[in-house]
Amino acid sequence: MSIEDIETPAVLVDLTVVEANIHRTQQGFDQLGLGFRPHIKTHKIPYLARQQIQAGAIGIACQKISEAEVFAAEDFDDILLCYNLLSPDKIARARAIAEKTQLSLVADNLEVVAALSEGFRGVDEPLAVLVECDTGAGRCGVQSPQAACDLAVSIALAKGLRFGGLMTYPRADTEDQVESFLSQARDLILKELGACPTISGGGTPSLNHAGRMPCLTEYRAGTYIYNDRSLIARGACLESDCALTVLSTVVSRPTHDRAILDAGSKSLTSDLFGLTGHGLILNYPGAEIVALSEEHAHADFRHCATRPTIGEKLRIIPNHACPVSNLVDQVVFLRGEDVWRPFPVAARGCVI
Amino acid sequence: MSIEDIETPAVLVDLTVVEANIHRTQQGFDQLGLGFRPHIKTHKIPYLARQQIQAGAIGIACQKISEAEVFAAEDFDDILLCYNLLSPDKIARARAIAEKTQLSLVADNLEVVAALSEGFRGVDEPLAVLVECDTGAGRCGVQSPQAACDLAVSIALAKGLRFGGLMTYPRADTEDQVESFLSQARDLILKELGACPTISGGGTPSLNHAGRMPCLTEYRAGTYIYNDRSLIARGACLESDCALTVLSTVVSRPTHDRAILDAGSKSLTSDLFGLTGHGLILNYPGAEIVALSEEHAHADFRHCATRPTIGEKLRIIPNHACPVSNLVDQVVFLRGEDVWRPFPVAARGCVI
Repeated sequence: MSIEDIETPAVLVDLTVVEANIHRTQQGFDQLGLGFRPHIKTHKIPYLARQQIQAGAIGIACQKISEAEVFAAEDFDDILLCYNLLSPDKIARARAIAEKTQLSLVADNLEVVAALSEGFRGVDEPLAVLVECDTGAGRCGVQSPQAACDLAVSIALAKGLRFGGLMTYPRADTEDQVESFLSQARDLILKELGACPTISGGGTPSLNHAGRMPCLTEYRAGTYIYNDRSLIARGACLESDCALTVLSTVVSRPTHDRAILDAGSKSLTSDLFGLTGHGLILNYPGAEIVALSEEHAHADFRHCATRPTIGEKLRIIPNHACPVSNLVDQVVFLRGEDVWRPFPVAARGCVI
Repeated sequence: MSIEDIETPAVLVDLTVVEANIHRTQQGFDQLGLGFRPHIKTHKIPYLARQQIQAGAIGIACQKISEAEVFAAEDFDDILLCYNLLSPDKIARARAIAEKTQLSLVADNLEVVAALSEGFRGVDEPLAVLVECDTGAGRCGVQSPQAACDLAVSIALAKGLRFGGLMTYPRADTEDQVESFLSQARDLILKELGACPTISGGGTPSLNHAGRMPCLTEYRAGTYIYNDRSLIARGACLESDCALTVLSTVVSRPTHDRAILDAGSKSLTSDLFGLTGHGLILNYPGAEIVALSEEHAHADFRHCATRPTIGEKLRIIPNHACPVSNLVDQVVFLRGEDVWRPFPVAARGCVI
């Protein structure tokens, strides 16, 4: 089977590029002496996470309890779930995972600490809980090093829990600020508790600057395995580092410059990430996807030397790879132009 | 079970509102004497399509061959698939559907006509193919009434096919332009072929103006069954007409004004539709979802009289309902505040 034979739209993943991304990234962290924990929210495929572990990763990161369940069932034995859990049901599910694998959780408030403590009461091995710190991204996280220390003490005192360290999802290009926040928090905690086991930073955009945050003991990143148009735009990767493309067919050429492709927002998503246009069409420099309907890409070829024909198949690097793989039950694994096989996205739709 | 007991994030569908939307809309078309053909791409649930038919709809519209297969298997007997099909495999699937149900397709170019003719060669009952017209939306479609007539003649001459009429997906608020294009095309076709069986217009945004296009013989719309924030903003519905909400939990309150909810772009999608913000939070007028991560909504409550607490469950009307229901394997059916049951989204992910 060749790429031409694949029904469209389809999400293609080039394993040659995936493996190069895995090994180049892992080597970088090995050289820094920094633990690397890939985030599986990008690919949601245990087969790929296993390659990340075999390359030297210390464990995996998940975002949702249902993702962690999929990967725990596949015998991944070190999982950091980077999300505040509150509901008794979700926490019971976390406890079931923790009985068979090394699970760590996070908290940024006392309500979460209380809920986790209630859910883990009476366990033999206390649950490691890291304090999530808002080092500038403006999402979750305690707002100051002192608040991080206070919450660390609360975790250390809570039944069923132990203080596991600090965790942040930082804004890109703010390494000095991240290092300052986390190292201050660590020093306060060392005085209070004597230990701050893990300090976990992350994000593919800052991945090449991880060395500027010497306080980190580990680093989490997800998108680096596939890369995407937003990371090309940031200078974090090259077009040739993009492993995931959406294969689409030109279904209409209504005007000289316009082509309609059969990949819309239900294939590419509407993520813009500050970019103009909805993806990069390979082999047609200057082509722009100016709008998306649910099942149509509206592409403008006015700046291109040539125009595609009806029935032609085009590959698109999406703006953001992670939500694209979450839309499909399977991706198609390739090596270069050779099609290997469709492969299930085991944790697709694991939103709980 | 009450809404408070539902694990989040979850997509809730209030059947009381759904039924009101179905009946009010159908009554409007009945009064106009215009056939109504609901588009199932919004809900992808045969149970709801059956209610639409029982209320008086003449058939259903689908966007993809895999959607049509799901609904044909549920015995829907009049399906218009509003999408150019090119691949022999998809056309073979269409032929299999056409053997058991009344299927119509569309074309806006000769390549599609040739592919359909090849695939339907030798059938007893020729396939009805409508000419898709670009009446101003700038998506698919022939560019002039004369081009519509020329393609109609090609369809009428093609083996295995018969000319089924005209179809357009119009830009909102351009009813005069749509009427002018379609009536000119119809008149040209009547001279050439003697008949122009169906003239199909559509779109929820223009739904209340369908009467301004007297040439139409049927109207397609999908989103009206759920409605969403984009349709509130257009004045096409009220907040109380919105049947679909995303239930989410406040998982963090990092600052006085900021709340983080557990519904991100993998639940709400990033569709903006020209709006600011990523959804309407019920019961907190002035609250804004200022950003989405994949699993977090970043909400700003600075303009609100009160602030939600950690653990509180909030309902969000998404900007665009259709891609939201495509993200989940099941929605939760409600009647008002009473939870009925989870219900499978049978055609979720039917992107082929």
